[in-house]
Amino acid sequence: MLLNSNGVSVFPDNIEDIVLPEQKDRFRQQIEFILEVDKLKNVLRKTILMDRSRRENSAEHSWHIALSVLILSEYAKDSDVDLFQVMKILLVHDLIEIDAGDTYCYDDQGRKDQTRREKKAADRIFNLLPADQARTLRELWDEFEERKTPESRFANALDRLQPFLHNYFTEGQIWQENNIKSAQVKSRMHPVDDGAPVLWNYVSSLIDDGVKKGFLSE
Amino acid sequence: MLLNSNGVSVFPDNIEDIVLPEQKDRFRQQIEFILEVDKLKNVLRKTILMDRSRRENSAEHSWHIALSVLILSEYAKDSDVDLFQVMKILLVHDLIEIDAGDTYCYDDQGRKDQTRREKKAADRIFNLLPADQARTLRELWDEFEERKTPESRFANALDRLQPFLHNYFTEGQIWQENNIKSAQVKSRMHPVDDGAPVLWNYVSSLIDDGVKKGFLSE
Repeated sequence: MLLNSNGVSVFPDNIEDIVLPEQKDRFRQQIEFILEVDKLKNVLRKTILMDRSRRENSAEHSWHIALSVLILSEYAKDSDVDLFQVMKILLVHDLIEIDAGDTYCYDDQGRKDQTRREKKAADRIFNLLPADQARTLRELWDEFEERKTPESRFANALDRLQPFLHNYFTEGQIWQENNIKSAQVKSRMHPVDDGAPVLWNYVSSLIDDGVKKGFLSE
Repeated sequence: MLLNSNGVSVFPDNIEDIVLPEQKDRFRQQIEFILEVDKLKNVLRKTILMDRSRRENSAEHSWHIALSVLILSEYAKDSDVDLFQVMKILLVHDLIEIDAGDTYCYDDQGRKDQTRREKKAADRIFNLLPADQARTLRELWDEFEERKTPESRFANALDRLQPFLHNYFTEGQIWQENNIKSAQVKSRMHPVDDGAPVLWNYVSSLIDDGVKKGFLSE
């Protein structure tokens, strides 16, 4: 497999000196995966940065929420939540957007075939890896999507909180541009309550306050 | 404390309903920290993305290497390495660049006062958090910088591998623009050997190959 238009391949001629022959395919797949996921840095979300200079991409969003695990863990609904698992879920949760793109949460049209598009993306992207790692990452993504475990519920709460904070603290610029109503935001944000009730109380009060301040409409 | 030029504050009027009075300062500091670290998305590194479309920022770089922990863990020198710790170190390791900027690793002038600038940044940024969390994050950063533990050595290996891969697989564009020599890259990359010897063998062979292909000079 070649990696760019100029045909630079993963291994120079002396690869046999680096890993054992039986590890060669595995190592190649791992490096190719790491190079491939760089594309997540070009997937733009609706959210803007706090300084409003540009839209956020899904790679930096993933970093932001994985870091916030360390800061907000005490608000997880389940006090025994496995934070390492939450972090892994968050680092992986948006990889499917490399193929499927970021679907705006209030885009009802785009959301119709979102599941189909994202499953197809997962099939391709995770399977770039050796089978055992492909399975591990697929399970992390499935866990995130299913929202059944305490870890995935907390992960979902953090994933929804961060763009919400950006929206509120940029005075609802994106809400206004897309004519979003408070009931839509409340509904979208409600999973925060399943993962971190204190954070949901905070979000809920900011939504009410945002209506009062004119950041989003009633 | 106000959060933007328009004076939107962290709490609307009804904050007393959300957290206990004694938690109020703690919660405010945590939210303010999360909003502040958004600035890492505007810290540009020398490295370019794989598609060469733009320079990479330090937030997305941090995501990329934290994710790579999951992929490359089997190459850690110490097979007992605590991967959760490695991940935490990597999510935190560049936060000081919010104030100190990214210092190009071959910029001898900039590196002279790098330590002083970064320590000053650490003092400000981590101390935005409640004291216990400030201490935890500072310890993660100190551990990364000191490179004494197996976790920090593996973290440093991944931190150096990723931009190196970008440089090699974009045919040394940034190396050439900055007239970088192979001996400089070998010296810069040598900590990879302390954290992940197999990856160092790989890097080392790519450096030799890069010279052969003209990506960087002898």
